[in-house]
Formats: sequence, structure tokens, C-alpha cells
Amino acid sequence: MSENFVLLIECDDQIGLVYQISKVIFNHNLNIKSNSEFVDEESKKFFMRTVVSGGLDQEVFLDELRAVLPKDALIRFSKQAKKNIIILATKESHVLGDLLIKNYENELDANILAVVSNHNLLKSLVEKFDIPYHHCDVGELNRQDHEYDLSQIIELYNPDIIVLAKYMRVLTPWFVCKYDGKILNIHHSFLPAFIGANPYKQAHQRGVKIIGATAHLVTNDLDEGPIISQDIVRVDHSFSWQDMKKAGRNVEKVVLSNALDLLLEDRVFVHNNKTVIL
Amino acid sequence: MSENFVLLIECDDQIGLVYQISKVIFNHNLNIKSNSEFVDEESKKFFMRTVVSGGLDQEVFLDELRAVLPKDALIRFSKQAKKNIIILATKESHVLGDLLIKNYENELDANILAVVSNHNLLKSLVEKFDIPYHHCDVGELNRQDHEYDLSQIIELYNPDIIVLAKYMRVLTPWFVCKYDGKILNIHHSFLPAFIGANPYKQAHQRGVKIIGATAHLVTNDLDEGPIISQDIVRVDHSFSWQDMKKAGRNVEKVVLSNALDLLLEDRVFVHNNKTVIL
Amino acid sequence: MSENFVLLIECDDQIGLVYQISKVIFNHNLNIKSNSEFVDEESKKFFMRTVVSGGLDQEVFLDELRAVLPKDALIRFSKQAKKNIIILATKESHVLGDLLIKNYENELDANILAVVSNHNLLKSLVEKFDIPYHHCDVGELNRQDHEYDLSQIIELYNPDIIVLAKYMRVLTPWFVCKYDGKILNIHHSFLPAFIGANPYKQAHQRGVKIIGATAHLVTNDLDEGPIISQDIVRVDHSFSWQDMKKAGRNVEKVVLSNALDLLLEDRVFVHNNKTVIL
Amino acid sequence: MSENFVLLIECDDQIGLVYQISKVIFNHNLNIKSNSEFVDEESKKFFMRTVVSGGLDQEVFLDELRAVLPKDALIRFSKQAKKNIIILATKESHVLGDLLIKNYENELDANILAVVSNHNLLKSLVEKFDIPYHHCDVGELNRQDHEYDLSQIIELYNPDIIVLAKYMRVLTPWFVCKYDGKILNIHHSFLPAFIGANPYKQAHQRGVKIIGATAHLVTNDLDEGPIISQDIVRVDHSFSWQDMKKAGRNVEKVVLSNALDLLLEDRVFVHNNKTVIL
Repeated sequence: MSENFVLLIECDDQIGLVYQISKVIFNHNLNIKSNSEFVDEESKKFFMRTVVSGGLDQEVFLDELRAVLPKDALIRFSKQAKKNIIILATKESHVLGDLLIKNYENELDANILAVVSNHNLLKSLVEKFDIPYHHCDVGELNRQDHEYDLSQIIELYNPDIIVLAKYMRVLTPWFVCKYDGKILNIHHSFLPAFIGANPYKQAHQRGVKIIGATAHLVTNDLDEGPIISQDIVRVDHSFSWQDMKKAGRNVEKVVLSNALDLLLEDRVFVHNNKTVIL
Repeated sequence: MSENFVLLIECDDQIGLVYQISKVIFNHNLNIKSNSEFVDEESKKFFMRTVVSGGLDQEVFLDELRAVLPKDALIRFSKQAKKNIIILATKESHVLGDLLIKNYENELDANILAVVSNHNLLKSLVEKFDIPYHHCDVGELNRQDHEYDLSQIIELYNPDIIVLAKYMRVLTPWFVCKYDGKILNIHHSFLPAFIGANPYKQAHQRGVKIIGATAHLVTNDLDEGPIISQDIVRVDHSFSWQDMKKAGRNVEKVVLSNALDLLLEDRVFVHNNKTVIL
Repeated sequence: MSENFVLLIECDDQIGLVYQISKVIFNHNLNIKSNSEFVDEESKKFFMRTVVSGGLDQEVFLDELRAVLPKDALIRFSKQAKKNIIILATKESHVLGDLLIKNYENELDANILAVVSNHNLLKSLVEKFDIPYHHCDVGELNRQDHEYDLSQIIELYNPDIIVLAKYMRVLTPWFVCKYDGKILNIHHSFLPAFIGANPYKQAHQRGVKIIGATAHLVTNDLDEGPIISQDIVRVDHSFSWQDMKKAGRNVEKVVLSNALDLLLEDRVFVHNNKTVIL
Repeated sequence: MSENFVLLIECDDQIGLVYQISKVIFNHNLNIKSNSEFVDEESKKFFMRTVVSGGLDQEVFLDELRAVLPKDALIRFSKQAKKNIIILATKESHVLGDLLIKNYENELDANILAVVSNHNLLKSLVEKFDIPYHHCDVGELNRQDHEYDLSQIIELYNPDIIVLAKYMRVLTPWFVCKYDGKILNIHHSFLPAFIGANPYKQAHQRGVKIIGATAHLVTNDLDEGPIISQDIVRVDHSFSWQDMKKAGRNVEKVVLSNALDLLLEDRVFVHNNKTVIL
């Protein structure tokens, strides 16, 4: 019985890449289910995402691929399968709740292994859905110690992706580095507008006519990570900042959910702090 | 302690209406918190929504209002308070789940009295949130008899609004008439495009580049009721109809939720099968 | 024969304002064609826009209005009529061209008195439409002297509104103050994102998934004036900054045109560096 | 000096297509500038758009391609160059004007060879831009005879694409067949909503909250051709149908212009009356 595999390649562009790669795929008698390439003209980088089906000797296949690719090539290759995720949240439940409902109705192509919160308000919601809940209390701990506790919980589950579903604490470089490229955050503004705290208050203060939300991978620079997805909603003078916050919540959950889907489908490359989505 | 009241007036337009109405409000020493009027130029109808605060003798106030308004005037006047709603659903949980989560986090300004379904898949989801669940089985019943059963359940709760959260049965004139103006439906297309069954399949077949959802009040003409809210999402040739359905689910729940908020805030007038939203 | 007048009132909120104002209107036997109010809860400011028709003694009417309004009330009252505008541009023609075409087809409710540019590329385009064109060359002039020349040209026409249709020079406080509240600018980003030069390059560098444009009134703080209108368009990794610029041009012209319509219809109030649009 | 060529392939899907095609490209020492494929899972059709640069013997190259492709393969291959277009219009100038301005500022990658109208209102606008204008009067002619006259004018120019920029006459099968796949139309509604005449009146009558426009290739079934691009704008109860029409004009011109760009860049495949856009 044949399975689906996702092949992601990122390397310097050169003549013949598509030919060379498709030749290896062809020689292994794999069927290409979908294929997308992109060449970034500025940096001359080549990106390719291919879904293939068939049976194969993975070692040999990858060896042959490496032989035809530039030395700097990054290759990701994996069976198409549900990924394991952990959700971090704080007090707000709208993004978390949306993921729990989607998971409940099998609309989320992932296993939610656990939910961790630095507060204890979300316990009953999470447990309704029979998902392990951890309260990782900050208490008197400094940031490092709290994150150590957090990482201990995460280590129990070894997730593929850590979803910050309105987790309202800034992460240290240690934590970000430890889970490099695996942390997805939803920021409650249309980045780079309104970086930092209380973006809805800032948006109200500035009198914008559109607000938004941004899902991005987390890097050490706060709110500066590679953007995966954004969306907006219109507001007007009659919106208090609380009204904006309420309107924004619908956007936040949709944007986060869209970005998570893209990660779960192995569609996201990161290059020069930007995403290429194939 | 002063309370908020919502006053909705709909009548033939004539000179001096705003003056006459605001005079009555002023004489009762009420404070206008917000006020919107609209005159439909075509039909010369006047619509006004006013939120007032203060203490008042409601009988006298309404008598004085009636005295200055045309005889055909429709007046709705009520204390600002949470409305009671009942949700009807079938098998899909995304719209229902969104309402349950919003209710859980106090983002829904309503009391969900009960959920009724013609199938039995949603029981466990509803009961997680400690909300009464009724299975109103169709079984061998004809449409009339099933709706009679349904109405018996609804009568237990006397809801202000009946929310069809992907309730997939067509309602008879008897039922629609019984709950005239109280039934809110979410249709999974950008009406009037794709009336009827399987709109996502129709949209896929037609090759549209945008799909949408429509929340409307239910009338006897299927998918022809007054529209309260619509929204859209972009699709392309790579979307199967199942992909469209998935993308549409996010739109459906947001549109239904927005429309429900407008009803809960007493912002919706119906005139000539259209809505005026103030 | 009755005419239409627009009445704009801005003052501290107090009980009975709508009643008092509508009473004056009623006593002058004026018909209210449309009426909108808004109270900013934060600042307790009352805003009202009313279109009335009828014949009236303007002096008496305004005296009576002032008598019932708080002392700080700002009253604008004018016959509904085409406003006179002047357009300032630099090299790009897409926003200017859109206005010229709209004007040609009578879709713009304004008289374009003249177009002024600090370059000389747009002469032939403007003159196609038989509209006076002025080249206000910067040459060796410092900013003040150039703006003096500019203002001399503007004085020839005494416009109601000065439209910066991609006029790419920063204005001095002297100029901004001289035409306070009359200068409409289109900024080629979704403010407050990407303030300053080359916003499309900034957007490309940041890897955003949505770009936009902002029409705002000009104040002394660059790109910080009250926002009237904003809109967006989706982009992805395949867009070079030039592609973003091209996509943005469609948004720029639509946003500017929408904002100009709002000004031409006397719908814009400015309060706390934000707009209230009624 | 190397040139860019666009290669479009459409054929039944089979294993090894990407390999076989890229091998021919590689053997001709061509550089792939961009490449997109899509397989329609329903019909098992393979679509590929490749931009290559280099010098080549076109005959040999196409022969080799045909040798590796299924017999039913459709191959389009052409040098990347400005296409020639003719614009047909009636009375309204907003879409036409937008194209003329874009052309004037070199934003349109096409040569506008001529504008033809069945009325004579647009002459002065077109001639401002030094573009040949033809009045193809209907007079007493029946539809066939008028279209014959029209085709005689078109034959003078041999355009690649015929743009209907609000050309308000229904075309006969004879005309559609003669220019099969070459006629681009802008319909002033969000198809399939509001097929036929006066869509803005229909939209107003139905009370929709969003209106739109659709650019599509023309087929014999009125308003049923393959959709290339759609967009929308929000409206509310305060919009008369004339207001909707005005709001829609901005959408119409943007949608038509986007669709035309896609045709000019050879990005559009038609399959089963739908478009695949690569």
C-alpha cells in the first residue's frame, strides 16, 4: 500500500534543479501528487515542495537527492501524518476554544497532546475535551525558572509544534532557541503596526479604520518573527477599544488556525525572516 | 439606579419626527446614550433606534410616544438585557461550537437555554458545557409532526431567538409563521448565489474565486429571508469542494455570530424583506 | 424652491441636545433628510450631522442654534454644493488619473480647479482634460521658498480641499497650518505600519501578507494625521516590492477617492487626532 | 542575448510528466525562471506553466516536448512580449478610463490598438490618449449585421485579446466562436448572483450586504463563462441602487484590470468552464 510523503527542498538556485530532482523521483517510481517551486530572485534561493506517493527506500532516495543538489541544500522529508502539538495559553479562551472545537470535530489535522497555562482559568474548558491540562504557575519564579518548568512539561510530550494561543508572556532567547522554528504565535494586531502591549488600545488611540491579527513564528525579536498569515476587520469611530478587541478575537482565531494548518501541511519555509508558503 | 432601554421605532416618514420623539424622551428626563435614524427614500419609511437611560413610567412614556407618532408606527421598547436563545443544529458542530465557546467566555450577550438536534451526534459536545440538550428525532415522522415535536421542546423555553446553527432541514410555513421574525439561519453561500443544497459543490462546479456565507432571518421562501450579515473568503482552482467547505466553515461561524450580536443588541429592523441595521 | 443644507455640530455632550437641535430645525419648518449623531464616551463629545431641506433665514437659524448649544459648540453649516479642489502631485499619475477620469465622467462631486506638480511629467495628462496645470519647480529653492511659491498658486484658486495625490514632499508646519484641516493625503501603507519612505520596500523586507493604503488629513506629524479611510490587498512571497507597489496602486487610488468623497459630502469630524465619520 | 518564453502545457496526468518536460528543457540548456504545476484530481488533468530563458530552436524543442507528452496535450509556447488588445465599450468610461490611464503610465503590459463603441460618447476620452477610436453604430442593423461590422473593425487590428470594458450588448454565438477564448468581460455582480440586466438594482432589491464584480471569459451562455477574477465591497441599507452602482464601479475596474493582467501574463488555462491560474 502506497503512502504520501512530503519533500521540502531549499537551496541555491541553479539550472536543472527541477529536472534533477524530478529524475530522482521518477527513478524511484514515485507519483508526484502536487509540486510547487519558487525562486527568490533577490537571494537566488530555490524552494520546492513536492508530495509524492509510493513505496520507497528512504535512505537511498535521500542519498540520491543529496547527490544532485547543491551542498547547502536543506531537505525535509517525512511521511504525511498528523503532527503533535502543544498549546500554551494564558487567560483568554477564544483561540484555544477554537482549536479545541476544531479538534473535536476532526477539522484539525493534529493531535493536541496537552494545554499548558500560566494561569488556572482554562482548566475546566480543556478538561471538557479530555485533553491533559498543566498549570505552570509563575508564582515567585523568575522568567528563566518559569520557562525551565514550562520546558519540562513540554519535554513530556515532545511536540512538533508549540502553539501560543494568546500566551501573554514574552519568551527568553533560551526558550525560543530550544524550540527554534517550532513556536507559532498569534499577535493581536496587523504587524508591524502596534508592536508590543495592548495593540487594541493603541489602534483605538490612533483611530485606524482597520484592525487585524498576525500569526508568526517566534524569534528572539518580539513581534518580529516570520509572518505566516494575516487578516483584518473593519472598524470605525464608534468602536471603543473593547469593541475592537471583541471584533479582533474573531480575526485572531481564524488567522491562527489558518497559519497552523499551513504548518501542519508542511507548507512553510523560512528564509531571511520571511516565509515562503508553497 | 438608572437602567438602559432600547427604543425602536418604525413608521411613515414625516416632518418633525426626531423633534417629537426627542421631546418625549426629554420630558421624561431620559438621557440618550445613542441614537440612529434612517429614512428609506424609496418607501418613505422612518427607522430609529435609541438607547436611553433613566428611570421611567413605561406606560406613560409609550402612550406619549404613540400620541406623537403616525398611527402605523411600530414601537419596540425593552430593557437592555440578555436575551434567551435556543440553538437548533443537525450534525456539524463548528457554528454551534463557536457559540458554546463564546458563551463560555461571556462573549455572547445571551442565555443559551438549550440545544436541539434532529440527530444525536452533538449531545456530548453540548453537555460538556452543561447546557440542556434535546434529541428531536425525525424517525418515521412527517415534516409536520416532527416540527410539532420540535415546537413542543421550544415551548419549554420560550426563547427570544431561535438560532439555526447549520440545522439542515427545511422548515414549513407553520413553523416559520409560529416563530415569525425570531429564526436566524446561516446559509453556507453568498446569497443569492447558490441557493439550495450543497452550495460548496455548486461553487466548485461554477469555478468561483470567492465563496461566502449569509446570515438571514427565516421566511417561507427558502434562502430568501432578509439578510443581516454576509462575509466572504477567497478560493482558487486548487480548492476541491471539500476545501471550500472547510474554508467556508470559518466564514459561516463568524457571520452567524455577527448577525446574532446584531439581533441581541436590538439593531435589526425588517422592511420589504430587507434589513435596516442601526 | 427648497435647497439642501448640511449642518455639522460638535460640542460637549449634555441631556436634551437632540431635542433642542431638532426643535430649532422644526421651528424653521425644515425637513430632515438624514441625521446621524455620535457621542464619544471617552471624551463625552457630541457629534451630529444633519441634512435639511427648505428655505431659511440662515442668520436667525444659526443664532437660535447657538442659543441652545453649549458655548464650546462648533457649528458648520453650508449649502450642499460642489466643493472646489486643487490637486498636488509629483510624478506618479495613478491617483491623479483616477480623479481626472472620475471628474470627466461626473462621478466626482467637485470642481478640480487646477493641478500643481513639483515636476513636469504630468502636464500632458492634465491638459488632456482641459484643467489648468502649474509646474511649481523646486529648483534651488529651500523648502520654505518652494512652499511659498506653491501657496501663491493655491491662492489663485482658493480651494476648499487640497488633495495630495502622491505629492512626495514633506510639508512644513507653516504650510500645514495655513491650510489646516484642508489637506488630504494618501499614504502608500497601512498606517501606522511603515511610516516614512518606501513603505513597499519596508513591507517586502518585513514579509507581510497584506499591504494597504491610508488616506488621512495632514498634520505636522508626518504620517500621523487623522485617518479617514484605509484598505488592503493580499500579497505573498512571490511579490517583489515592485509587485507590491503595483498592487498597492489600485488600493491607493480607491482609498483616496473614498476619503475625498467623505470630505466632499461634509461627513468628517476631527477630534483628538481621530475622525468621526457620520 | 537570451529571451524569455512562456510554455503552457495541459494534458492528461501521468507519472513522470514533470521529469520528462524538465528533461527536454534541460537538454535545450534553458533556464527555468518560474514553474508551476497543478493536477486537477477530479479530471486527472495536468497543467503546467513554465517561464524559460535562453536561445533555442523552437521547432526542435516543441517536437521533443510533443514526443514525451500524451497525444492530447495542448501546448502553448510564445516569446514573452506585449500583447495587442482591443477594447469594446458602450457609454460608461470608468473601466475604459482606468485602462487608458494604466496604459498611459506604462502599467499595462499591452498595446491598446483601438477602442470601439456602439455609441459615440467615448470618442473624446479615447482620442485624448491618441488611440484610434471607432464608432460601430447599431443604427437599424440586426445583431448579426452589427457584429459583422464590429468584426470588420477588429480584423483591421488582429488583437490577441478583446476586452469588453462595460460593452453592454449580448454577443451572438457567431462572434463568440470567432474569437473563442479571447474575449474578456467584466460583469457588474458577484456571479453567479444577479445574472442578467441591472444587477445593482437586483442587489438592492435583495438587500445584500456585499456586492461585487466578476471578470470572465465570454462563452455562449450569458454570464456563464469561466471566471478569472472576482472582488467585493461592503454595502448597507443606506445604499440606494445608484450608490451601489457607484461603489461597484471601483470594484469593476480593479477586477477587470487584474484579470487582464493574468491574461497578458499567459497565466490562464480554461478547463471544464473553469479557470486554472498558474
